[in-house]
Amino acid sequence: MPEVTPTLRWIGTARDGYLRMIDQTRLPVELIEIDCRTVEDVWEAIKSLRVRGAPAIGVTAAYGVVVGLQTLPGDVDRADLDSRLEEVCTDLASSRPTAVNLFWSLERMRQTAMNAADLNATMMHERLLVEARRIETEDREMCSAIGRHGAELLNDGQGVLTHCNAGALATAGDGTALSVIFAAAAQGRSLHVYADETRPLLQGARLTTWELRQRNIPVTLICDSMAGWVMQEGKIDAVITGADRIAADGDVCNKIGTYSVALLAKAHNIPFYVAAPSSTFDLSLDSGTEIPIEQRAAEEITEGFGRTTAPTGIEVYNPAFDVTPAKYVSAIVTERGVIQPVNRETVTAMLAPTAKSQAVP
Amino acid sequence: MPEVTPTLRWIGTARDGYLRMIDQTRLPVELIEIDCRTVEDVWEAIKSLRVRGAPAIGVTAAYGVVVGLQTLPGDVDRADLDSRLEEVCTDLASSRPTAVNLFWSLERMRQTAMNAADLNATMMHERLLVEARRIETEDREMCSAIGRHGAELLNDGQGVLTHCNAGALATAGDGTALSVIFAAAAQGRSLHVYADETRPLLQGARLTTWELRQRNIPVTLICDSMAGWVMQEGKIDAVITGADRIAADGDVCNKIGTYSVALLAKAHNIPFYVAAPSSTFDLSLDSGTEIPIEQRAAEEITEGFGRTTAPTGIEVYNPAFDVTPAKYVSAIVTERGVIQPVNRETVTAMLAPTAKSQAVP
Repeated sequence: MPEVTPTLRWIGTARDGYLRMIDQTRLPVELIEIDCRTVEDVWEAIKSLRVRGAPAIGVTAAYGVVVGLQTLPGDVDRADLDSRLEEVCTDLASSRPTAVNLFWSLERMRQTAMNAADLNATMMHERLLVEARRIETEDREMCSAIGRHGAELLNDGQGVLTHCNAGALATAGDGTALSVIFAAAAQGRSLHVYADETRPLLQGARLTTWELRQRNIPVTLICDSMAGWVMQEGKIDAVITGADRIAADGDVCNKIGTYSVALLAKAHNIPFYVAAPSSTFDLSLDSGTEIPIEQRAAEEITEGFGRTTAPTGIEVYNPAFDVTPAKYVSAIVTERGVIQPVNRETVTAMLAPTAKSQAVP
Repeated sequence: MPEVTPTLRWIGTARDGYLRMIDQTRLPVELIEIDCRTVEDVWEAIKSLRVRGAPAIGVTAAYGVVVGLQTLPGDVDRADLDSRLEEVCTDLASSRPTAVNLFWSLERMRQTAMNAADLNATMMHERLLVEARRIETEDREMCSAIGRHGAELLNDGQGVLTHCNAGALATAGDGTALSVIFAAAAQGRSLHVYADETRPLLQGARLTTWELRQRNIPVTLICDSMAGWVMQEGKIDAVITGADRIAADGDVCNKIGTYSVALLAKAHNIPFYVAAPSSTFDLSLDSGTEIPIEQRAAEEITEGFGRTTAPTGIEVYNPAFDVTPAKYVSAIVTERGVIQPVNRETVTAMLAPTAKSQAVP
């Protein structure tokens, strides 16, 4: 396995350490790591998308709490630490107000402090670093388990199409869809990945190709409009994507364009796989039709490349996500195992037993 | 009908006139017309893609010949005119060495001169302007006939998806696919067009949206990856595109992405129409599998618009076209009538009788 720069990592002690992360806004042109040594650094990194992807943001925020407590003097009272902790959490929560993992992670840090009221400030600070590391480790383990279960689905010599970026850069570990590819490759299977560039924000072109190359996995970049044609030419044996939300019946909400790719795969008799942690399932949603679709700014499409590419004021439709009905999904790979076929019963069987504890990622 | 700036037009006499055209490289940001008063102006306009689209280039070259003869003194010998004519044609032919219509148009101008050996230089110059105007008129009539035949296929209140630009900007007239939309709108039908942006070169975003807005036809710009989703949402009742080449069995070669759109239309039971002049058919090609697909530069995808959007040196697959099998094409609209259903027999019936005279556009 080639040496890979981790998306993020903690360096040093709770008292003097810092969070080092890849500045994803510089990719793919430059691989630059930045060190966050203050809450303001962490806040800015999340706000400016230097770190993105729900799991990665959660881990970043947890370490942000540890960094935030470093402003306290060494002999501070526990009450002062608790007060500063609240301040830091409130501050970090404002960096990305729609990121569920951010709130979940900060809440877990708060609860950790509440559950250890007997520790002094120094010990509590160290305990919070342990908890942040635990959140990171759990995320890595989730990614590894998805990779382990999913690798079975990919065979030696196959061409695999992916859409958007469901990779290591979105997590503290190996990602979700890409984790499956990395795991299959690590088991010695030779794969060739086709990466949709993924308009409008080009996560496929900018991030997925970069990750695959960093791991020495052959990758070819295509425009989204070419997916059907490369399937027709026989270049693709399987499709795998991530997911943003999955309903109780197995309908998958993911990056816009996923639905088209799933239909095209179906038309060519190519299996369409989704890789996502069990926390992505929202069993309160009866089906995918209940998932609201976020509409995003027109400028993402009309000013996409630093140059105006459409008439000023033209009407634009820019849904961030689409919903792929379960009937087009061949299997969903979770950290608990593979759901196949995908329907209400199989989803329930895999998810329901511990659904409550998994309600929040 | 709102007043529309023509793609190109001749202003004045053979002796003192000039060719005025829209500078398409400035669209959609600015509508600028440029005047070509020398062969060099015309050559540069074609070379720099200020004018593009096979029919439009053919008409431009014909007027370029008229402009080129203006350097001759008024009392010149006919032999000198013939000699200058050769020089101008050779020059213009080098502006876009792959454009079939360019050579065809220049050859027609040469033949016009050869067929009128008795005219003096002044009369010949005027005769060549008449011929250039005739080429332009024929192109306009072809567009109008396609619009007239195709308009029947679109009903009031429909949503229509198009891919790339098969519009007025590519011809001297109203275009091909867009001519159908313009004609239906002119007949009072209210349509809403969805325009695929059409990566990598964004002809849909830059040109199609601009043309439709100029004609006051409601248009919404989407990314190519959204086509399936807007169909699923019930926004699309018909799809219509142009064609670059059509085989004897009705297989359609067109801008990359057309094949995906056709498959997606099929999956949603939406008719998929193609509009193209009979000159687009190449009956020497038994089926679409015989059509070679041009591969274009990686930079069109990785350096889209002045900014690097993929890792340096990444492998890119960039086919310019794809082939849509006839079975996915509901109808082909030509200037002679509508081919429906589309198969070897119906194509032959519409094309064969005068196929020879239509072999060159």
